[in-house]
Amino acid sequence: MPCMPGIGKKSGCDEMNDVAIVGIGCTPVGEPWNKSLREIAVESTWAAMNDAGVNEVDGLVVGNMSSGNFVDQESLGSLIADYAGLGNITAFKVEGACGSGGVAFRTGVMAVASGMHDVVCVTGVEKMTDVVGDSATKILANASDREYEAVHGVTFVGLNAMVMRRYMHDYNARREDICSIPVNSHKNAVHNKNAMFRREISLDSVINSPMVADPLSLMECAPICDGAASIILTTRERAKEFTDTPIIVKGSAVKVDTIGVHDRKNVTSMTATVEAAKEAYNMAKLTPKDMDTAELHDAFSIMGVIGLEDLGFVRHGKGAHFAAEGQIGIGGKLPCCTYGGLKARGHPVGATGVYQILELTKNLRGEGVVDAQNGIAQNIGGTGSTVSVTILGRDI
Amino acid sequence: MPCMPGIGKKSGCDEMNDVAIVGIGCTPVGEPWNKSLREIAVESTWAAMNDAGVNEVDGLVVGNMSSGNFVDQESLGSLIADYAGLGNITAFKVEGACGSGGVAFRTGVMAVASGMHDVVCVTGVEKMTDVVGDSATKILANASDREYEAVHGVTFVGLNAMVMRRYMHDYNARREDICSIPVNSHKNAVHNKNAMFRREISLDSVINSPMVADPLSLMECAPICDGAASIILTTRERAKEFTDTPIIVKGSAVKVDTIGVHDRKNVTSMTATVEAAKEAYNMAKLTPKDMDTAELHDAFSIMGVIGLEDLGFVRHGKGAHFAAEGQIGIGGKLPCCTYGGLKARGHPVGATGVYQILELTKNLRGEGVVDAQNGIAQNIGGTGSTVSVTILGRDI
Repeated sequence: MPCMPGIGKKSGCDEMNDVAIVGIGCTPVGEPWNKSLREIAVESTWAAMNDAGVNEVDGLVVGNMSSGNFVDQESLGSLIADYAGLGNITAFKVEGACGSGGVAFRTGVMAVASGMHDVVCVTGVEKMTDVVGDSATKILANASDREYEAVHGVTFVGLNAMVMRRYMHDYNARREDICSIPVNSHKNAVHNKNAMFRREISLDSVINSPMVADPLSLMECAPICDGAASIILTTRERAKEFTDTPIIVKGSAVKVDTIGVHDRKNVTSMTATVEAAKEAYNMAKLTPKDMDTAELHDAFSIMGVIGLEDLGFVRHGKGAHFAAEGQIGIGGKLPCCTYGGLKARGHPVGATGVYQILELTKNLRGEGVVDAQNGIAQNIGGTGSTVSVTILGRDI
Repeated sequence: MPCMPGIGKKSGCDEMNDVAIVGIGCTPVGEPWNKSLREIAVESTWAAMNDAGVNEVDGLVVGNMSSGNFVDQESLGSLIADYAGLGNITAFKVEGACGSGGVAFRTGVMAVASGMHDVVCVTGVEKMTDVVGDSATKILANASDREYEAVHGVTFVGLNAMVMRRYMHDYNARREDICSIPVNSHKNAVHNKNAMFRREISLDSVINSPMVADPLSLMECAPICDGAASIILTTRERAKEFTDTPIIVKGSAVKVDTIGVHDRKNVTSMTATVEAAKEAYNMAKLTPKDMDTAELHDAFSIMGVIGLEDLGFVRHGKGAHFAAEGQIGIGGKLPCCTYGGLKARGHPVGATGVYQILELTKNLRGEGVVDAQNGIAQNIGGTGSTVSVTILGRDI
């Protein structure tokens, strides 16, 4: 792991190990009401361990947003390690709202880079569909500022709708261009057996779908769903023991912004994305031009557009047009959300960031839907209050 | 950070930086109904930063169990970084039930040891006393196995009561000996201005207090309360820039066990404590004999007793007698819970592990209630399903 720039690092960096991905696994995203959180988490953990060919790990980092509210269960580290039969290892949960998966991944990278762990499993999991008490919408609002946002009744769709309206105003952007984000994601989900919605949708159907929070319509919003995804990490040095195609973590950053949207000078760009991307590109010594594919956090259509801009692929205000031109499709200039994104693969919040990195890994291994040398994933928590950016590359 | 033994480490370890504590701060534990979670978290974060003399950090690790259930708020990383004015740094929450504070501390150690962070704040916080919906007892039960334990109505006191009864049976232990644990903690809290209960209690008053879950009485159980505690970490190399008395993290381990108590062969010893202690002692190249003081997780009297045994200070079955003899008092062979422990300082669950390390740091700096060269802290999540063990020492 190279030095992070700009924080006065004085020692140790040059000796850091690179970290590699040697295994991936997940469950299909959907509404498996016959399976509990622990079952899908164990299923994906085992799938990734099988993929890596390991029968033990010495660390488990769980990415999860709100199992306490969704299924009355905390202590996911011990729960999943226990039911996956991992023994008395180190295990704990990491939370960064809907960005929990990406944050857990970076924590796993730290665990290996620190030398304190050797082979680590990162499992993102969320079980959202069979909630007994509160509604999922109320629970998700816990990721906004409870005392200054949620208390007034604004939901996440509402907050994102305000961002979208401002964006359309500032850049004179067309709603039909922004709506090309979910059209692309659905198209790419058709061939993903783990996606929740494996069917194409037309631009008209998005535009004419019921309004949820004006100007965001139903087909611009990711679904409430369940899922679990896992990644096995080890040092670059050891990676070849497990796989012929280790994928290198070239950059991994997590940055936060104000939790409340009202406290930002500009709501049409996410500072946390910009800062995380800057750090990740610097770590990787790569630029946006080097990226062959991108997994955007398209929980709402507008977030896909702003992601394209904040990650440096197009100038501010140009994202919607870039998408509408077809540049983000398979075969386009920058294939995005290649397995369906949050909209069509699904968005089991704490797992999403891990699904993205898994999909990116497939594309980098040469077994995916695009053939990529380097790729990037962006995972957002809250309305841009926590963002992780991950850059992966082939081991060449 | 030296190599962890026994997991086949092949590279990097010898180059690891030692990690040091350079700042500590906390709020008084109690029932501050006029302050929200964010307020106490910011107060303790700033207190630790002031103590270290830093006005910025590049990482914030929050230890918290259940803010989603207690105060309808997730995303504590961005929330606290935002309100503490820390800017667009890396910030996230770590959870390991009532052991969240200790787990967060170790995650902060990894962050520095990995070279990915330079100066990190670890803030443990829990706000438990002004819950609107569910009761605190129900929320705490989320740390047990919801589907196999809590669903039957057993609470944490109930689970610990079963452990205590088995312990008394197996070792023919006397209840009045076990009850000397809270007597010691209360005695030590008198001089701690941050403690919730600053008064001594007699052995008789403990024994005769109302039964909560037979054989555990009210005065053997830690209170529901609010609190926040923070620690500033950096490399050993940089530590002298901030303080004349840096405290070195000599060992730091987190281990899990089965989440359900019924799945263990032996319930009178916590395997997670034994394994975490083994790893921490190995990292530190120290033994129980080298410890001058111990912060035990005395959430229930019996846990203090078993902690003494599992950390290697006395043989199994001898902990209660050791405590009753006065060996754990200030001036005794091994002063324990020197600032009141969980019973009298209080147990704001996600913050507790950080309070313990803060108190240990005071004792090691030579500004505490005992004068120690090395010390140990044990923080438990669930009924021993997650345990962190931390060994600190002077920089000599």
